Amino acid sequence: MGRHPGFTLHVARSAWTRLAASRDGVAIQGESGVAHQAPQARDTQRFHASGIDSQADHHPCTEKRMTTTRAYAAFDNTSPLRPFDAPRREARASDVTIDVLYCGICHSDLHQARNEWRNSKYPMVPGHEIVGRVVAVGDKVTKVKLGQLAGVGCMVDSCRECAACKRGLEQYCEKGNTQTYNDVDRDGKTPTYGGYSKRIVVEERFVLTIAEQTKLEAVAPLLCAGITTYSPLRHWKVGKGSRVGVVGLGGLGHMAVKIAVAMGAEVTLFSSSERKREDAKRLGVHDYVVSSDRAQMRKQRSRLDFVIDTVSAEHDIASVLATLRLDGTMVLVGAPENPLALPAFPLLMARRSIAGSGIGGIPETQEMLDFCVEHQLTADVEVVPIQQVNEAYERLLKADVRYRFVIDNATLV
Amino acid sequence: MGRHPGFTLHVARSAWTRLAASRDGVAIQGESGVAHQAPQARDTQRFHASGIDSQADHHPCTEKRMTTTRAYAAFDNTSPLRPFDAPRREARASDVTIDVLYCGICHSDLHQARNEWRNSKYPMVPGHEIVGRVVAVGDKVTKVKLGQLAGVGCMVDSCRECAACKRGLEQYCEKGNTQTYNDVDRDGKTPTYGGYSKRIVVEERFVLTIAEQTKLEAVAPLLCAGITTYSPLRHWKVGKGSRVGVVGLGGLGHMAVKIAVAMGAEVTLFSSSERKREDAKRLGVHDYVVSSDRAQMRKQRSRLDFVIDTVSAEHDIASVLATLRLDGTMVLVGAPENPLALPAFPLLMARRSIAGSGIGGIPETQEMLDFCVEHQLTADVEVVPIQQVNEAYERLLKADVRYRFVIDNATLV
Repeated sequence: MGRHPGFTLHVARSAWTRLAASRDGVAIQGESGVAHQAPQARDTQRFHASGIDSQADHHPCTEKRMTTTRAYAAFDNTSPLRPFDAPRREARASDVTIDVLYCGICHSDLHQARNEWRNSKYPMVPGHEIVGRVVAVGDKVTKVKLGQLAGVGCMVDSCRECAACKRGLEQYCEKGNTQTYNDVDRDGKTPTYGGYSKRIVVEERFVLTIAEQTKLEAVAPLLCAGITTYSPLRHWKVGKGSRVGVVGLGGLGHMAVKIAVAMGAEVTLFSSSERKREDAKRLGVHDYVVSSDRAQMRKQRSRLDFVIDTVSAEHDIASVLATLRLDGTMVLVGAPENPLALPAFPLLMARRSIAGSGIGGIPETQEMLDFCVEHQLTADVEVVPIQQVNEAYERLLKADVRYRFVIDNATLV
Repeated sequence: MGRHPGFTLHVARSAWTRLAASRDGVAIQGESGVAHQAPQARDTQRFHASGIDSQADHHPCTEKRMTTTRAYAAFDNTSPLRPFDAPRREARASDVTIDVLYCGICHSDLHQARNEWRNSKYPMVPGHEIVGRVVAVGDKVTKVKLGQLAGVGCMVDSCRECAACKRGLEQYCEKGNTQTYNDVDRDGKTPTYGGYSKRIVVEERFVLTIAEQTKLEAVAPLLCAGITTYSPLRHWKVGKGSRVGVVGLGGLGHMAVKIAVAMGAEVTLFSSSERKREDAKRLGVHDYVVSSDRAQMRKQRSRLDFVIDTVSAEHDIASVLATLRLDGTMVLVGAPENPLALPAFPLLMARRSIAGSGIGGIPETQEMLDFCVEHQLTADVEVVPIQQVNEAYERLLKADVRYRFVIDNATLV
């Protein structure tokens, strides 16, 4: 199986693989997740490492230089997550070992735990919004020191050699980046396990430095929700006086609002209901628009320079496109499972564009973290113990969180 | 009814009006064309000028400063086009009067004659690819002289005051441009009639200058097919070494190929069948890809800088998007009646964009005409007498033309 670009956040690599390989590029055939012989908690019986290399039929921990870390994992697409001892490699010379303090719960964790992107490999330890403290560094590590705060986002590796990687756009690695969980290391066989765990070992290139600050739990979501919204806002040059639309006020949306406001933009929030109007105003939103209200939508017509659409469910994009001025761009950062309906007229009438953007590269992620320190931005979070992760998933499905659940990894015992 | 941006070529203004006004921006309700009391050929009985100003219930030609010109018109959405004496205003001080020599037959002529965009006003004289000779100029005219060649494209007026008009982007006039036919003059009542006629009177700002050359019939299609493809190729900075994809080899597609090749690009042509392979090679195409062939499509993956999609029927765009490299753009210049299926994944995976573009502004249209003279580019045409226009429409429906029908207006008697 060739490697293809992939994002952990809202894009499933193997969905893309099938997409690209399918005749018309649209059809995504149903496919069961690759269910390994699921080990029980603390079970050390052998299991297939990834289902990709069938030769690797030994438990990774029996290999030299492997240990385990306490974690929570999904073992199939229906059971609740439960404790698991996840294998971790021992640190190499360029590796950073991080004790995880907090890990955000991204909607994509739920998608993947339940195999909704049809590329799940079990057992799976989700989590890619990781903040922790460095507890060990290899001899070659220069980026962080022992005792410093560090972060890990959606990627833990990439080819490092392609044009994209050389530009620091590892998220668009031509050979596909290595995702923090539900992926396979570049050795082709070792599964990657995410931040619902006590400890993670990551090559320093993919480690972010985090400034000392008090509310670390509110920093964790920046590693995915923050960079996913910061990157397109920066790429499309949002700045002072820009008129920016944000579609949806959830984990991604509330960060998009905060960052765009901090960049100096006038922000219009498109929401499906009146429910979040007060919250939006508190976050600095200038106009709050209920997207189903024709009169409100009409007032926004041809006004906006840029729109960031954070909705990953099916939704109407045509009426939002009409809010863009001449040459305006709307960027999708959520990935609805099914194709969206795109009428050509709103694009043709004002040379508008619709684009997509996935997370951000490592240099830009660091830039975003520094920007957030400078502007005192963090996520709005609700901290939960790991034992409540399944309940948090259920509440997430009902959008019953403002705006991000974050796991307190100290509860992992 | 307010004025909205509109293109004659592939976009119907009133479709857009309904689109923008509709609740979700997608639904385009069916609507009968505005059928006026249809006058018979050479009939001078009174008819409503446009259906918009019901006070204007007098034949325009009875007004001061009005004459008629011999033309062919559609009188409803089913009957063949037939002779009609179309009203023409007498020239004002800034007007240019042009004897039409050739007029291209654009697919949008057929769409509108048959009310397929549901905004047709009858009688309708189609035609917006007009080349002719100046037979009169007003006192204030400086752009052209008596006896010179001149052209008229898809627009004959705009507000001239908005930001778009001031930038020479009259096609995106914020108040809506005035289309060459099937539209109403900015006086709010006088219908516009196109180039299936002996004579046309146009304000000089919307007149193009045409260099003296031998094959004038092959120049006519540049006024729509030429500028519609030139404008996005220029806007997205296609040049030497660019890898450009062109989807569809018809009236627009064959001009896109010629212009992109002249700009120095390496062109890949996506076609639905093998039929046009030889023709494409003759036009300078580097790679010819049958879009239904998975293996051929796979070879193009992530290769192209820019794709121009000229297809106005429903078609798969996802597989074509996958041929774009990181940050590549695909631009639609055809407008399928129904929304296209847009999967988010191909956009997200490589920060690709899909955009729309409509015709081009007057300054850019002149630039295109000069570019075509410099590079000796014209359209591939089949000249027909006006009496065969209905037959030409039928053949157009079967794509039985390589690549543009052009009316010899000398046959209009």
